[in-house]
Amino acid sequence: MVLLTRKAEFSASHYYWNPAWSEEENVCVFGKCANRNGHGHNYTLEVTVAGDVDADTGFVVDLKALKEILEREVVSVYDHRHLNLEVPEFATLVPTTENIAIEVWKRLDGKVPGARLHRVRVYEMPDLFADYYGEA
Amino acid sequence: MVLLTRKAEFSASHYYWNPAWSEEENVCVFGKCANRNGHGHNYTLEVTVAGDVDADTGFVVDLKALKEILEREVVSVYDHRHLNLEVPEFATLVPTTENIAIEVWKRLDGKVPGARLHRVRVYEMPDLFADYYGEA
Amino acid sequence: MVLLTRKAEFSASHYYWNPAWSEEENVCVFGKCANRNGHGHNYTLEVTVAGDVDADTGFVVDLKALKEILEREVVSVYDHRHLNLEVPEFATLVPTTENIAIEVWKRLDGKVPGARLHRVRVYEMPDLFADYYGEA
Amino acid sequence: MVLLTRKAEFSASHYYWNPAWSEEENVCVFGKCANRNGHGHNYTLEVTVAGDVDADTGFVVDLKALKEILEREVVSVYDHRHLNLEVPEFATLVPTTENIAIEVWKRLDGKVPGARLHRVRVYEMPDLFADYYGEA
Amino acid sequence: MVLLTRKAEFSASHYYWNPAWSEEENVCVFGKCANRNGHGHNYTLEVTVAGDVDADTGFVVDLKALKEILEREVVSVYDHRHLNLEVPEFATLVPTTENIAIEVWKRLDGKVPGARLHRVRVYEMPDLFADYYGEA
Amino acid sequence: MVLLTRKAEFSASHYYWNPAWSEEENVCVFGKCANRNGHGHNYTLEVTVAGDVDADTGFVVDLKALKEILEREVVSVYDHRHLNLEVPEFATLVPTTENIAIEVWKRLDGKVPGARLHRVRVYEMPDLFADYYGEA
Repeated sequence: MVLLTRKAEFSASHYYWNPAWSEEENVCVFGKCANRNGHGHNYTLEVTVAGDVDADTGFVVDLKALKEILEREVVSVYDHRHLNLEVPEFATLVPTTENIAIEVWKRLDGKVPGARLHRVRVYEMPDLFADYYGEA
Repeated sequence: MVLLTRKAEFSASHYYWNPAWSEEENVCVFGKCANRNGHGHNYTLEVTVAGDVDADTGFVVDLKALKEILEREVVSVYDHRHLNLEVPEFATLVPTTENIAIEVWKRLDGKVPGARLHRVRVYEMPDLFADYYGEA
Repeated sequence: MVLLTRKAEFSASHYYWNPAWSEEENVCVFGKCANRNGHGHNYTLEVTVAGDVDADTGFVVDLKALKEILEREVVSVYDHRHLNLEVPEFATLVPTTENIAIEVWKRLDGKVPGARLHRVRVYEMPDLFADYYGEA
Repeated sequence: MVLLTRKAEFSASHYYWNPAWSEEENVCVFGKCANRNGHGHNYTLEVTVAGDVDADTGFVVDLKALKEILEREVVSVYDHRHLNLEVPEFATLVPTTENIAIEVWKRLDGKVPGARLHRVRVYEMPDLFADYYGEA
Repeated sequence: MVLLTRKAEFSASHYYWNPAWSEEENVCVFGKCANRNGHGHNYTLEVTVAGDVDADTGFVVDLKALKEILEREVVSVYDHRHLNLEVPEFATLVPTTENIAIEVWKRLDGKVPGARLHRVRVYEMPDLFADYYGEA
Repeated sequence: MVLLTRKAEFSASHYYWNPAWSEEENVCVFGKCANRNGHGHNYTLEVTVAGDVDADTGFVVDLKALKEILEREVVSVYDHRHLNLEVPEFATLVPTTENIAIEVWKRLDGKVPGARLHRVRVYEMPDLFADYYGEA
């Protein structure tokens, strides 16, 4: 078994806000991320799939197919978007790096033919990233 | 004379929109950047100052002072902000990488004690950046 | 469960020397790292914590709290220091990348509220790093 | 137990071609990688070994020894070579990133004194890499 | 005037060989680069254009147009190719980093509408690059 | 004319101290860099030479020769050394990034056959670097 990882990028806006809380609570917990005008990031996504190497192709997965799946399922939905306002899963969920990793997993799981989704890593900044391996 | 360059980062939202144009024209010229909900980036700023090396300190400029100036004049104003909505110069100016470089120059020029501002470089993404050297 | 990783940096001096050995043995085993004047590195630290995502915040861990813990427990102790001469654990322990990873683990383990320390990675150079996951 | 990872680089040419297939099939599956003139990459190799930290040296493995093993077993064989034409294992095996990871593992497994090979990671490009952990 | 720089990448094979020389001379001067099977690199191209910022768009140059020009004039011709065998200018010219920078300049000069080509930078490896500014 | 740039690295210790000042003055100006035990960095050096491209080789400069000159004149002298204590020029000169750039220039100027030294860039950290172009 070999793991294959492909990176992709998207640029998006977001803010952190829990509607069940007062403005004071939001600012206290989320600091400058609570600014309702939003701020943004160049997110980097690393998607890892696991599988056996096909003897004919030497591939775990067809990279063109994997790239198209990432583009269709994630990048075209998240890139140049305001995550809170335009991406359905973040209408009610705070778009933290942790939650983005989980939601990207849900968007990709079961969609990669011939390989198993192993890990989703999301970098919000070069010095901060979250990893999700699915539910145990 | 030696040039000294210090990097800084800020994360911000923006969109591209010319109010003198119709929505169709804006979308035609600016594409997905015209999305009024905004999208965002991790901007990297490289500020270069030029000067003689002080014989006592070995410095062109005191780095702590330079860092404080960058923080006070630029990062505290741009970071975790929506550039179009919250930064005065972009109320009427499209916040392109080019214009950000020029405006950062204006914010810093003449503020660095003992050294001359030489260049402002702004990366919007790792594969795109603008350089401004002031007016000739 | 999600893993969250935060990077931090510190610049420090060190040398490799086993006092139970002769100078010849030290030079033979440690090469130019045995230079008693010391040499130095920009170390990069990656600290990974594991936990469930809080439904209210979308966080595994409060990033400001994590950053303060890294600063207080590690960076303020190691940064701009000579590891052999100024950091207690390296008075008797050779400050190799491996040992630094273990000692950073000991400094952080049990200190991150609401999350479990999962991995400490230390880069001595961009092409060399050590990972420690605690004792099995 | 600590994991230690060392990077190395090699520049090589390759193409993807399955001799059991027609030219049409090769082009259909491998696209521009099927160009028989070859194209090339700067490959980055990350080799991870696992072991206990030696109490006298603070090392999992002697880095000079590890570097020499990587140089002798892999870099001197792959660097500035055409993988399909000059490296024996790729005479019959498609030199995909996945297969390179497996073959580098075979070349290194059992050769690192005092430590166990844990993982071989091969980057073909900064946005694409394969990991191999040996057979379970 | 602002300078705008866009990066692009291509992966290609090449070898160094001067047909006016004997094999011994070629090996003596070019070392392992003289291997006629070829070897390869992930080249990174940085193209810098200079111009005034358009008051309506905030652009020195339309980035989509610039990207298309780079793709059409350079990347589609060089990527996944053997430079010596498939790219006309290198049939007789040694495809060194220096010569690639000059030839990319010739391919792009005069093709970018509304801006002047300022510099072409070509990285063969992360630690080696050539810059060409055109003829004085 | 083409510019060719080669990177090299060295790891060294240093501290900032002006012997004409009191300890209070040194700490006031140099902060934690004034720690006399020293601290260290992974320095990255970028050396740029300028020249015409040789019609026979396609080279501005023979890269093997350039690499040997960098190794002999700079890296072998600075690497794994304490700059203040072991490198002659820093016995009396504060080893700031600015002064290192100037001293590397002096060590290399006139030593590269067939090309002119154009610029020396020294990174002390990824976010801080100095450039020196020689005396005008």
